[in-house]
Amino acid sequence: VTPTSADGRVLVTGAGGFIGSATVTRLAAAGYEVHGAGRSVVSHPALTTAHTVDLLDPRASAAVVEEVRPSHLVHLAWTTAHGEYWVDARNLDWIGATLRLLQTFEHSGGRRAVLVGSCTEYDWSRPGPFAERDAGPRPGTLYGASKLATSIASCAYGEVRDLDVAWARIFHLYGPGEDYRRILPQLVRAADSGTPLELRQPHQEIDVLHVEDVAGALHAILASDLTGPFNVASGEGVTISEMAEIVGDLAGAVSHTVVGHPDAASATSVVADVGRLRDDAGFTPRYSLHEGLTHTRAWILDQAKGATH
Amino acid sequence: VTPTSADGRVLVTGAGGFIGSATVTRLAAAGYEVHGAGRSVVSHPALTTAHTVDLLDPRASAAVVEEVRPSHLVHLAWTTAHGEYWVDARNLDWIGATLRLLQTFEHSGGRRAVLVGSCTEYDWSRPGPFAERDAGPRPGTLYGASKLATSIASCAYGEVRDLDVAWARIFHLYGPGEDYRRILPQLVRAADSGTPLELRQPHQEIDVLHVEDVAGALHAILASDLTGPFNVASGEGVTISEMAEIVGDLAGAVSHTVVGHPDAASATSVVADVGRLRDDAGFTPRYSLHEGLTHTRAWILDQAKGATH
Repeated sequence: VTPTSADGRVLVTGAGGFIGSATVTRLAAAGYEVHGAGRSVVSHPALTTAHTVDLLDPRASAAVVEEVRPSHLVHLAWTTAHGEYWVDARNLDWIGATLRLLQTFEHSGGRRAVLVGSCTEYDWSRPGPFAERDAGPRPGTLYGASKLATSIASCAYGEVRDLDVAWARIFHLYGPGEDYRRILPQLVRAADSGTPLELRQPHQEIDVLHVEDVAGALHAILASDLTGPFNVASGEGVTISEMAEIVGDLAGAVSHTVVGHPDAASATSVVADVGRLRDDAGFTPRYSLHEGLTHTRAWILDQAKGATH
Repeated sequence: VTPTSADGRVLVTGAGGFIGSATVTRLAAAGYEVHGAGRSVVSHPALTTAHTVDLLDPRASAAVVEEVRPSHLVHLAWTTAHGEYWVDARNLDWIGATLRLLQTFEHSGGRRAVLVGSCTEYDWSRPGPFAERDAGPRPGTLYGASKLATSIASCAYGEVRDLDVAWARIFHLYGPGEDYRRILPQLVRAADSGTPLELRQPHQEIDVLHVEDVAGALHAILASDLTGPFNVASGEGVTISEMAEIVGDLAGAVSHTVVGHPDAASATSVVADVGRLRDDAGFTPRYSLHEGLTHTRAWILDQAKGATH
């Protein structure tokens, strides 16, 4: 199933965020009428309406849905404070808020929802690659547990109601717009300035997608009639050290900018089985890792330059 | 760990229900100060206070917790309308209500919570016996999915907060007080009147506990310092046909009162691995199946007699 045309009115929550902005752009380009909601949704040329709203407030959340009356929903909003969201008690509130949103969406005529989860729903102490059926029963963090709990309940709800619910488990990602405290901006700045960077987990293997490919995958899932969980990833592992080497090469720097932290934890591998995304939803990424890193590095350096003026 | 003494002030939700009443009696006998909350909590000699409250209402739920200020919580309330709760949309509301209750309990000084789940959290299409780690990722019903979702989120929450959270997965149960539409009352009335009873799943194997033993197991878990999921069951399978035979023998009736339904589904086996309950919580049931059925049959016949006068 290749999504070649699009229809419908989609509400994107978390539309002002890193993934949200790219998703709004992508869905509007595909022909959807796109409405945005979230804490920090600013006007975006691709948005028909923008709603600044605290989605944890049941009345405010319901009011937006009843005003927009979307046929489609892409729900990205969640607690995401950098470095805190792993243990944030508000994870529990987002479970309730998401399940309420799904019901309000259904009651106002919604037909198809793509809700967003994470690779943290898998137990990283087990060997990968992780297929969708491997999720649970013990994710390692409150964030992962809360996402998994929401995926189980919302997909089961879709099965007993006249509502399609798909659940996109996004693995690691990078791209223009990402927070400067994330790993790639750190690697880029270190390589560019020749400053050694001490990493806690240089040999950790992750599975990364460019944010525009994440948006493309969400679009492919939304435009299909498929339900249940989907891994959103490349299916290929890369270690932090290997990413540092690519970034070092691009900078013309030597790769010893990366140093293993003495307490480095034993390396885990968090790589996806992307069979469902590739074969069922018909999605393949547009960016190779090298292209994506080249392009994102340029954006990061531009930003850093801007910040010093 | 055998719970021989008890302390603390416990709030029991769903205290007016089948399991709730037995639990209130058991905990009061063990020395707890017991407070009850729920839709249909009537005065019970073992209750210090009784709160008739809709726990889906966040303010009303919080008000009870703040008034009682319990050190311990046993949360039994959930949507339980006979035959409807498998698909009831309110299952989603109970996830949110339970997670809010847990937070309110913690904020008001609560230390230890036992929340109640079900054998429906396991995937019955897989072979048993089911150990706690086997739960997920796809329970067969919205009810089971909602209970599993709540177990994952609430146990993960306990791990990052100063709060003990245990989760009791109750398998099948029977005993005085059970609804007349349940299987055992049907078998007893059929055997006693000699009426053939057509069963959809005569060869389904289940794992049953007497309701007083369920209350005993909840007490053992509450009195321990253990966290995470626990199966609450006997660890032994019995088919519906075998239960019918015991009941038929007790009535002096022939066992052909039970007839397989022509559409009988292929038999499943829903039997628990009770290693955690027995070895960690130190619990063993008081009733053998034969004793329990004898005693419950007498209660059912008494009720039926009462109903005809």
